[in-house]
Amino acid sequence: MNKKIKKAVVLSSGGLDSTTTLAIAIKEGYECYSLSFFYGQRHKFELTAAKKITEKFDVKQHLVLNLDLDRIGGSSLTDDMDVPKNKNLKEMSNGIPTTYVPARNTIFLSCALAWGEVLGASDIFIGVNAVDYSGYPDCRPEYIAAFEKMANLALKSTVEKKISIRIRTPLLHMSKADIIRTGIDLGIDYSITHSCYDPDAKGLACGMCDSCLLRKKGFNDAGIKDPTIYVNQCR
Amino acid sequence: MNKKIKKAVVLSSGGLDSTTTLAIAIKEGYECYSLSFFYGQRHKFELTAAKKITEKFDVKQHLVLNLDLDRIGGSSLTDDMDVPKNKNLKEMSNGIPTTYVPARNTIFLSCALAWGEVLGASDIFIGVNAVDYSGYPDCRPEYIAAFEKMANLALKSTVEKKISIRIRTPLLHMSKADIIRTGIDLGIDYSITHSCYDPDAKGLACGMCDSCLLRKKGFNDAGIKDPTIYVNQCR
Repeated sequence: MNKKIKKAVVLSSGGLDSTTTLAIAIKEGYECYSLSFFYGQRHKFELTAAKKITEKFDVKQHLVLNLDLDRIGGSSLTDDMDVPKNKNLKEMSNGIPTTYVPARNTIFLSCALAWGEVLGASDIFIGVNAVDYSGYPDCRPEYIAAFEKMANLALKSTVEKKISIRIRTPLLHMSKADIIRTGIDLGIDYSITHSCYDPDAKGLACGMCDSCLLRKKGFNDAGIKDPTIYVNQCR
Repeated sequence: MNKKIKKAVVLSSGGLDSTTTLAIAIKEGYECYSLSFFYGQRHKFELTAAKKITEKFDVKQHLVLNLDLDRIGGSSLTDDMDVPKNKNLKEMSNGIPTTYVPARNTIFLSCALAWGEVLGASDIFIGVNAVDYSGYPDCRPEYIAAFEKMANLALKSTVEKKISIRIRTPLLHMSKADIIRTGIDLGIDYSITHSCYDPDAKGLACGMCDSCLLRKKGFNDAGIKDPTIYVNQCR
């Protein structure tokens, strides 16, 4: 029997969430195509992690697109601006932090639509989470729903072949601890993932940026040892 | 009186439509920031045209972003594939032609959102047209409306400052002839614009691709001499 191959594009940052999302997509039986971006981010070590992850998983192809978003700026991830650091999550400031990158998920999802159309993949997986997150607007369910609606009007395949695009967000309503538990069950070795926004020259995680704090909290809440090596080991 | 500056990002391909859109935005009193893309297109002469246009107009800044969409492919504008040529518009095939670039407007508009947010520009102008066009899905009014809705959920500025993003499409329901008449009234010298999808090595327009045929039809219908130099001068 010639079973039809289900294809998916998975946005892969090399971090904890996108890696878990990739493992879920593979578990669901998709042939996965992972998409990463070099967009001028200071934490480009995530791309090394993304590469390692796609090698470890059964990923059909890994594409790293180049886009010079650092020329647009507006974020402490791309500009010469300090990444906010705190000792714990309680000290995190209210509001959307400076690590927000303008329209990042919109740009990444748009490129995923393009690649998906060429590949014949109608499912796009993205590891957004609206529970243990930094408050980025483009991680919220209402944003994802609006993007999906737009996507279904944007593409030749949606018009000519009546293909429905689905933006898949399996982590959307999960806590970070649940994400980690799910990933462990799926056999992820989280030591190869990279979450830190501001690693040192060797790629060691700072342990104090929002992303590190959320990661630490997740492992702590899940009761699982965090395999990350932090630069100050201040866990 | 310190009049508040209205800022707009204008997507500028160097072609007839986007140049007219830019002239309209300037006429409306916007401080304009034009955005172009080098995305691996074969007709990169359009970027030279876009540069000339921004120099001619009162554009505050012209940004050319690099994005390697040719690695995604799926279009005769980026792939090693013939651009469809015909003697006249009647011979144009039905359906969406191979010059369609997957998710192009979605990607371009997404980057415009990002730059607009950094600049404090809530209006994004794009020269899409749903009358004399190639049937691209991402030029239709329903697509633009859905993109705008999504945009208003995507950005920090829409959440924290309650700013409304407007996707401005002044040409949407105009014929090509009306666009040209409008542009002439606004003082555009169309000889510096570039529409051709498949120019020769010197940048001369082929005169037979959809874009050339639509351009020719526009000048013809408007009763205005087309200043374009076509490679075969087969007007």
